[in-house]
Amino acid sequence: MIVNKDAINVIAFDADDTLWVNEPYFQKAEHDFCALLENYLPQHAISKELFETEMNNLSLYGYGVKGFILCMIETASRISAGQLPLKTVNKIIEIGQDLLRMPIELLDGVEDTLVQLSAHYKLIVATKGDLLDQERKLRNSGLQKFFHHVEIMSNKKNEDYVKLLRKIECQTESFIMIGNSINSDILPVLEMGSQAIHVPYHVTWTHEQASTEIKPNNFLQVDSLDQLLPILL
Amino acid sequence: MIVNKDAINVIAFDADDTLWVNEPYFQKAEHDFCALLENYLPQHAISKELFETEMNNLSLYGYGVKGFILCMIETASRISAGQLPLKTVNKIIEIGQDLLRMPIELLDGVEDTLVQLSAHYKLIVATKGDLLDQERKLRNSGLQKFFHHVEIMSNKKNEDYVKLLRKIECQTESFIMIGNSINSDILPVLEMGSQAIHVPYHVTWTHEQASTEIKPNNFLQVDSLDQLLPILL
Repeated sequence: MIVNKDAINVIAFDADDTLWVNEPYFQKAEHDFCALLENYLPQHAISKELFETEMNNLSLYGYGVKGFILCMIETASRISAGQLPLKTVNKIIEIGQDLLRMPIELLDGVEDTLVQLSAHYKLIVATKGDLLDQERKLRNSGLQKFFHHVEIMSNKKNEDYVKLLRKIECQTESFIMIGNSINSDILPVLEMGSQAIHVPYHVTWTHEQASTEIKPNNFLQVDSLDQLLPILL
Repeated sequence: MIVNKDAINVIAFDADDTLWVNEPYFQKAEHDFCALLENYLPQHAISKELFETEMNNLSLYGYGVKGFILCMIETASRISAGQLPLKTVNKIIEIGQDLLRMPIELLDGVEDTLVQLSAHYKLIVATKGDLLDQERKLRNSGLQKFFHHVEIMSNKKNEDYVKLLRKIECQTESFIMIGNSINSDILPVLEMGSQAIHVPYHVTWTHEQASTEIKPNNFLQVDSLDQLLPILL
């Protein structure tokens, strides 16, 4: 698979686990949550219940930390069969608030890659999550200056990308998406007729895991962001 | 105060309580919440506690229903001094989920006003709140077709409007904002050098109430959206 860079004008980056560490903080929060409740159920069973609650509420809450906190409370209430002490509810809110204050650790090579690419392309961010939370992370990342446009999206399906391209007045052939999620960053973008490069991250949220193993026949995969440079410059 | 309509190119509308009914649903939710807890404190004291929790968490949660639910739970836990039954926590989540499913009732004259104005101006929406929730309300309103651009903002301060105008490539003198909140829709827009028209709504969230009584010397006030027509056409 070869990237056709001549046509490209806009490079869009996913943010969480593409530019900075995110999922490990969620997994730590989930681990702490399960440990709080291990008197009621084994931890792996609590994880499963939590995921079920998240999927049930996804259309109502969307993505992001605040919905995650509400789902933890709902799950804890359910699996304790009404026996959950109030102090555990408070502890869950604390776990969630810590997530909203997570420090930003850039992934390897991110800053240098953006410096070099921004000299040749228009760079944008296309990310899902809570509006204020994603803005805060971007501000704390120090990366804002590299981006012409930041789009915080309620979803990343084909039609959401079509809308984004219309908004930034970009042709499908001039657009390439870089991200760690096959489901959100790669497949819908290819479906639209644009290019995409997958940068896998070592942990992926169950919801973002591709349901079947996908062979990268029609998209490129790189191990880290700086490997984009020889491809795109 | 006369509006200089010749310079105007973009008309921006606030959404909640400008295009459709919103605050009465929040007030109903707050009333139900206070009634749930009246064994612990008088209702007006609970309202005051809730508002305090919301202001404490505003920089962390931002605006919107999900943060409101989390604040109700935190407040209930605090005022019950740890005695809150778990079923009340569940009931609070239900009150919040009902808010996320609120029906959309357009305010008087909204649709006809947008039909007529959209023939002469570029119309946009500039609103605060949860990303997915505001998108859902706009979709359910049937008004989406009138708007060239929808901006869901984490805040509506002067600098947020400056960013918005840069994004939509609009000059300050070509922009006018229409909304029900003096603090969020009028003052920061005037400060930027643009025009604004206030359409008061009969209830306003405490946080949006102007701290001092403001005489509309430098902005126009109308009673309903259709009164914009003779001013802007």
